[in-house]
Amino acid sequence: MLNYQRTIPTKLYFGKGQISHLEEALKSFGKNVLLTYGGGSIKKIGLYDEVMKILNEGGFNVTELSGIDPNPRIESVTEGVRICREKDIDVILAVGGGSTLDCSKAIAVGTYYEGDDMWEMVVNAEGIAEKAVPLVTILTLSATGSEYDGGGVISNMNTNQKLGRSYTYPAVSICDPTYTFSVSPYQTAAGSADIMSHIMEDYFSRTDDSDLSDGIAETILRSVMKNCPIAIKEPDNYSARANLMTNSSIACSGIPAYGKQETGWPCHAMEHELSAFYDITHGVGLAILTPRWMRHILAKDSTATGRFVKFARNVMGLDGEDEAKLALAGIDALEEYFKSTGIPMTLTELGIDEEHFEVMADHANEEGYLKDAYVALTNEDIIQIYKACL
Amino acid sequence: MLNYQRTIPTKLYFGKGQISHLEEALKSFGKNVLLTYGGGSIKKIGLYDEVMKILNEGGFNVTELSGIDPNPRIESVTEGVRICREKDIDVILAVGGGSTLDCSKAIAVGTYYEGDDMWEMVVNAEGIAEKAVPLVTILTLSATGSEYDGGGVISNMNTNQKLGRSYTYPAVSICDPTYTFSVSPYQTAAGSADIMSHIMEDYFSRTDDSDLSDGIAETILRSVMKNCPIAIKEPDNYSARANLMTNSSIACSGIPAYGKQETGWPCHAMEHELSAFYDITHGVGLAILTPRWMRHILAKDSTATGRFVKFARNVMGLDGEDEAKLALAGIDALEEYFKSTGIPMTLTELGIDEEHFEVMADHANEEGYLKDAYVALTNEDIIQIYKACL
Repeated sequence: MLNYQRTIPTKLYFGKGQISHLEEALKSFGKNVLLTYGGGSIKKIGLYDEVMKILNEGGFNVTELSGIDPNPRIESVTEGVRICREKDIDVILAVGGGSTLDCSKAIAVGTYYEGDDMWEMVVNAEGIAEKAVPLVTILTLSATGSEYDGGGVISNMNTNQKLGRSYTYPAVSICDPTYTFSVSPYQTAAGSADIMSHIMEDYFSRTDDSDLSDGIAETILRSVMKNCPIAIKEPDNYSARANLMTNSSIACSGIPAYGKQETGWPCHAMEHELSAFYDITHGVGLAILTPRWMRHILAKDSTATGRFVKFARNVMGLDGEDEAKLALAGIDALEEYFKSTGIPMTLTELGIDEEHFEVMADHANEEGYLKDAYVALTNEDIIQIYKACL
Repeated sequence: MLNYQRTIPTKLYFGKGQISHLEEALKSFGKNVLLTYGGGSIKKIGLYDEVMKILNEGGFNVTELSGIDPNPRIESVTEGVRICREKDIDVILAVGGGSTLDCSKAIAVGTYYEGDDMWEMVVNAEGIAEKAVPLVTILTLSATGSEYDGGGVISNMNTNQKLGRSYTYPAVSICDPTYTFSVSPYQTAAGSADIMSHIMEDYFSRTDDSDLSDGIAETILRSVMKNCPIAIKEPDNYSARANLMTNSSIACSGIPAYGKQETGWPCHAMEHELSAFYDITHGVGLAILTPRWMRHILAKDSTATGRFVKFARNVMGLDGEDEAKLALAGIDALEEYFKSTGIPMTLTELGIDEEHFEVMADHANEEGYLKDAYVALTNEDIIQIYKACL
């Protein structure tokens, strides 16, 4: 087991009605609030009105930044920073899914950046910032885990770049599963695939003796595969939504990686290129890539077999004597599971062809990310994985 | 799944050589350090010298409080508080196992208590204190989890009382598994039983749908049962010691209870009476009580069968069609495991008879603790469980 540090400063309020803590959470930072949200789904479910009532009755001065896109854009960050600086914002209240939260983290840090070029800020961001506008979040989608980590992903559609960076932890996150009752089957499946990918990125690592991290990983994968189909069928099943939400927070928190060798998250690196070029749903891209990535690395490096056998047994519930067969059967079962949740499992179905694969592979490998992966990936490997997804 | 709040303010440095963070951790609080430790085992392993070198080179003013007993006494708390007040202590550095850490937490809070009667402070402590002397810990025994929670247990041998209370979280905990290489087989087994008990106290709860908490619990139990025998055979097996240590921190952190109904920790309540009357090793008392408690509640309430079946399958790795038999087989296997680690599995072997059982049962139930247990326990139940341990 490798050394690690464990500190997550976020105060997480989990469960029905936890919005009762909102006023007290905001008040501790000040009166000037920047309220950030996405395309208006929070209005449909009545959450916007509920939040505004609390803000108005609490005497807060509220400025709104809405329209934050699914793959949040650098333009929203720039606009948010402008507001924070002009209005002397004390606290950012982000209401939404991972995109709104990620964008708000970049705004929180960008406000104290010396300079106005926010893309430059994103490119150069290194680790958790020392200074940031305090951030309070209310989560409406179980997926990215942004409510309980310090990272965020920002896109620049002009340069076809999508960069993941560390910014700041939310000070407080309110996670009420009832706010996810209205999430569509498609987004539920995609969000669940994202949760699972966060786990699998760390699970497939060269460290074999970190029992707790591996056990948490296996538990979350089994729990997501149990509860996602229930949530799709019964959107207001509280228990299923609650399990997905608590899984999402832990999956991306770093906890399932404690004591394990870093991997550079290869599927995320490859998927960010898909989203950057084609603006597809992140979780869908991950679900398509993952089984193909698995088959590729298993074929490339037979020392990976043992861990895939563990995955087949402990996660997919399979058994068998022939380890090579069992390893592959686990991957097949994972692909079948994704299919069963309604995810289109080829890039072709999304209208993507091989036109940009070379430059995408180049970008994905640019930061030297994929040489640290469980099985190191060259550009040629990545192109082959993309092609297997067609 | 029930509502919960997740915040653990402790910064945990895990792994070999993490003592390199000690000076910086202490310095942030001030120069006047109270160094607390137990019976001198930290001198035997060279840790005392290592710590003193860092303290001297860092220019700290050090006062020592040593001789803190395994079931730490109120007298040590009183003495520590006197020193903190007199010497204007900025930070307490606790080096040792759970007893030293627990005692130091009570000192940290007691320093700001209005009054000099520290037993009164203990009796009346309610929840994490608002003000406490900052606490830095260096752990030398994987057992109580005191390095990553806010609680502590203090004994008053004059009144035969042993009370668990919430005090304060360590600000920083340094968990280096190599410091546990010299822990004896007996103490390794007892400490491991303590870790397991923390898990089982929450695992047997009426909430059935908290997948993540249950999965973490099952993982920790399996990991402890795998690694404790290895650590007993090969005391300096780093991986085994590391797994025990990381399990110990999480087991008592509350995380395996998130979203679950509280149980009042019945085995701990019953064991505290054993320690209070007979000063036995806490983990040994727990190991003796647990299987007897399990059989008693399973016989008393058949609705408990389902969870015992889950325990038999997911923790003890058993299988079978007959659920009633399987439930019992899981308990038998747990008792066998404890025996195999060298724990004396009867109170008789410890020289304890039924003389005080009635008053002990009375104390254990005094705070209304055991009516919230997975299966509620009357005084008569508790006496029967004690008797089954003879």
